Amino acid sequence: MNKQQLIDNIRRKQTFLCVGLDTDIKKIPDHLLDEPDPVFAFNKAIIDATADLCIAYKPNLAFYECLGVKGWQALEKTVKYIRQQYPDQFIIADAKRGDIGNTSAMYARSFFEDLQVDAVTVAPYMGEDSVTPFLTYDGTWVILLALTSNKGSHDFQLTEDAGGERLFEKVLRTSQQWAGSDRMMYVVGATQGRMFEDIRKVAPDHFLLVPGVGAQGGSLEEVCRYGMTEDCGLIVNSSRGIIYASRGTDFAQAARAAAQEVQQQMAAQLKQLC
Amino acid sequence: MNKQQLIDNIRRKQTFLCVGLDTDIKKIPDHLLDEPDPVFAFNKAIIDATADLCIAYKPNLAFYECLGVKGWQALEKTVKYIRQQYPDQFIIADAKRGDIGNTSAMYARSFFEDLQVDAVTVAPYMGEDSVTPFLTYDGTWVILLALTSNKGSHDFQLTEDAGGERLFEKVLRTSQQWAGSDRMMYVVGATQGRMFEDIRKVAPDHFLLVPGVGAQGGSLEEVCRYGMTEDCGLIVNSSRGIIYASRGTDFAQAARAAAQEVQQQMAAQLKQLC
Repeated sequence: MNKQQLIDNIRRKQTFLCVGLDTDIKKIPDHLLDEPDPVFAFNKAIIDATADLCIAYKPNLAFYECLGVKGWQALEKTVKYIRQQYPDQFIIADAKRGDIGNTSAMYARSFFEDLQVDAVTVAPYMGEDSVTPFLTYDGTWVILLALTSNKGSHDFQLTEDAGGERLFEKVLRTSQQWAGSDRMMYVVGATQGRMFEDIRKVAPDHFLLVPGVGAQGGSLEEVCRYGMTEDCGLIVNSSRGIIYASRGTDFAQAARAAAQEVQQQMAAQLKQLC
Repeated sequence: MNKQQLIDNIRRKQTFLCVGLDTDIKKIPDHLLDEPDPVFAFNKAIIDATADLCIAYKPNLAFYECLGVKGWQALEKTVKYIRQQYPDQFIIADAKRGDIGNTSAMYARSFFEDLQVDAVTVAPYMGEDSVTPFLTYDGTWVILLALTSNKGSHDFQLTEDAGGERLFEKVLRTSQQWAGSDRMMYVVGATQGRMFEDIRKVAPDHFLLVPGVGAQGGSLEEVCRYGMTEDCGLIVNSSRGIIYASRGTDFAQAARAAAQEVQQQMAAQLKQLC
């Protein structure tokens, strides 16, 4: 999916919500455990209940890998299901990979040739040749970690160099030499509040993937105030707040209600753009 | 495996070689492609041919993930085989993971509960709470990226802060507050030469996992001169140089010969410790 298609989807559906499929077998409703593939059954129900309210899905690889072979099967089925049923969805493999060139190339092959997602999250620590192998496929995206939502983001990402540039700013600036805003996005946690102003100074046009609204305490209103561009420029993720809104047999209905609440807030924010 | 057991293995076997199982289905000998699980068949032959010459195996997750479900099966079988046949081997899942706490905890579950490896490589960019979930299992290790072997290591890892401390040095220093040298190691590329001197100033007692000897051009002699401690303190990895020493039916024999050559060089280095 290219940038313009993504922007068009956001305008048409009046939402920039990404539903995070952090599907934990220990947290899904009991009645699904009798299904042949409980994780896929859960995801399918969540997707069907939310697809008109969001523009992206983000399976978090950790939650599938921890189930071994069965987890990979559930992940493959989930991505395929979205592709077939809801082809306008942007699919992000939240993997936070990053390794030497030949290894990153192998990861890229997994995500773009086999799974066929649109984007993969990548950690910047190993630099250019760990990132660019993800850019060799037509129309795919890298979403690079810049300023994350967790407490540990303060340990290294805010370190200032001798010229006063912080590490996350250096990541934003340097990585723009590797790809433009039509191929690269950045992860910026919703918990970072006014830091979005600083991010926009370095990356005015890039889409930002924003986790941390909901369970992690970030504010959608603040993210929009400081981070929104005239093309929206935001994909805001919510995982736990939506997919675990209920653990009963009404889980899909509850997920829809939770997603709808966020979508309505997003529609209000998008109105301000026109 | 604890630190003393690792040191004992190195002394007894006169080697600190780690064989990297970067097993690429496109590079293994043709005659193995008729096997029900070619990747496992290849790994098993390599392991049987090299187990007395090395103290560790390091499957690189990218090479298994790119095969989807079959890759995970091959990985699980490989780890189980090493555990059962060669229980003195230290097994490293080279995964370079690192995510917010609840996600890192899921990855830790995959690697330590399900796969049952000894150690996992972790990227430091997201800080403390992305790393410490890997330390909640008894006797397991985190191997944190510090100064990697690739060209892109210069992009961010060498950035100096206002006080002149480089990012990799800050990673080494800060992470020592999270765990001691009995639970944490660092990745330092063999291509970094004299930088090992600087590493040892900050981390004098830690084991270093050293990729980059062989195909990437690092020198074992230089790594030992600047990086070796009185307990050896090094696990030097070679992947391509050993496992692809031949692509014919003699591949296992050729891998053994290549591993033996490295082991003999290592034995010579270890003699200087006594």
